Amino acid sequence: MVRPAPRLFTKAPLGSGSFGLSAEQARYLGTVLRLPLGSEVRLFNGKDGEWIYHLQALERRGGVAVPAEQRRLQLEHQGSPVLLFAPLKRGPTEFIIQKATELGVAALQPVLTDRTNRENLRMDRLETIAIEAAEQCERLSVPVIKAPLALDLALDQQDRFIFCDEAGSQLDQPWGGDEGRSAPAGEQFATAAKVPDAILIGPEGGFTSDERDRLRADERALAVSLGPRILRAETAAIVALTLWQLRFGDLD
Amino acid sequence: MVRPAPRLFTKAPLGSGSFGLSAEQARYLGTVLRLPLGSEVRLFNGKDGEWIYHLQALERRGGVAVPAEQRRLQLEHQGSPVLLFAPLKRGPTEFIIQKATELGVAALQPVLTDRTNRENLRMDRLETIAIEAAEQCERLSVPVIKAPLALDLALDQQDRFIFCDEAGSQLDQPWGGDEGRSAPAGEQFATAAKVPDAILIGPEGGFTSDERDRLRADERALAVSLGPRILRAETAAIVALTLWQLRFGDLD
Repeated sequence: MVRPAPRLFTKAPLGSGSFGLSAEQARYLGTVLRLPLGSEVRLFNGKDGEWIYHLQALERRGGVAVPAEQRRLQLEHQGSPVLLFAPLKRGPTEFIIQKATELGVAALQPVLTDRTNRENLRMDRLETIAIEAAEQCERLSVPVIKAPLALDLALDQQDRFIFCDEAGSQLDQPWGGDEGRSAPAGEQFATAAKVPDAILIGPEGGFTSDERDRLRADERALAVSLGPRILRAETAAIVALTLWQLRFGDLD
Repeated sequence: MVRPAPRLFTKAPLGSGSFGLSAEQARYLGTVLRLPLGSEVRLFNGKDGEWIYHLQALERRGGVAVPAEQRRLQLEHQGSPVLLFAPLKRGPTEFIIQKATELGVAALQPVLTDRTNRENLRMDRLETIAIEAAEQCERLSVPVIKAPLALDLALDQQDRFIFCDEAGSQLDQPWGGDEGRSAPAGEQFATAAKVPDAILIGPEGGFTSDERDRLRADERALAVSLGPRILRAETAAIVALTLWQLRFGDLD
């Protein structure tokens, strides 16, 4: 397999005129990858598909690339889900951004729940992680990372959402009851009449019972259990996205 | 929901005689959780189900707990898969151990491939991660972490394995051809006649084309593509395990 040309995200329009590389991009292409002038670079911006550019100049402070041809059209699966997640500690939060990008989310919406860790989110850092993941995984877009919202406000923007109910898996444990158990994820996804436009993952420690009651009573919610083991929040996010892509998206 | 009693893994038999807590376990229960004497602790050892013990003594250097009752029988889904993975850098390797444990693997088998990072694996550290993940996710067993083996030798221990073929997803890219594309994972899992007993994930950078040719010609291999995006090795491991549990295991 021929090694594909490096791939960079930009917010600039593509296909007309030369492209100015940032100092960081120039350093990556020149110093890390040691690309000679004339080399191919692939650019995408979420709108114009993927373009081949040729490196025309490369210095320490920047560089120039010129368009050669469009290689891919902006055709991506439509209707990818939004992931609503309660921010976790820094490592797991960054992990969710990276993995959800690889798994094709349209957007990431941090939500504030009763048990949410309210540390400040470094939005610029999270955006960088999403861009790097998108560059690496061959996506043609970078998911939007939205400003944090209170849970209720975030849900008001969704028509129908998957609610990953970790407490729903636990109810065969001695400290739970039989009521309020959620249906297994596979079954719920398989029988869903409409495509849910969002997936909601709770904070470390789960939703409070008050939140859980409201979520389970919410007509827009499809409550699912992710099996007999209790998954960490970031694991639940990947598992739910995998099931979504399998049933409604492009995994199959 | 009542907070469940803390849960500890041990290699000792359960149910008969008192249990001696290690210094670390005593510190966790006494200093971190501040449990009073008489509190419930849950113990599991992979053989005797889950037992409730009561704390009888707790000091800095250790403690004693005595058996009260068996709370769960050793009933777990049989036939969980082995995950064969090429060791990655430390962070992603530890991540695979933790997440695969949460997703119910029976065992983890590091395999050496042409592009495997041959850093020494700290087997004791990996075992600790598996134990902590098992304690947290309510499993009744801890997956075995096997000593690294050459790929061919590791495959010789499997009857039938899923081969996650990341190159198989890329073949609609301009640098690939149409031959040798693997079938989508969902379809392959849905039509598999026998339960595969292992899942094979490649190294960062993928299998070499020589390895890939051998794998695709292997009668025991079910080659699957994990969708149009190129997943990192550790992401592919979780996605494949999720699909396995959905189709053959206990996710549904």
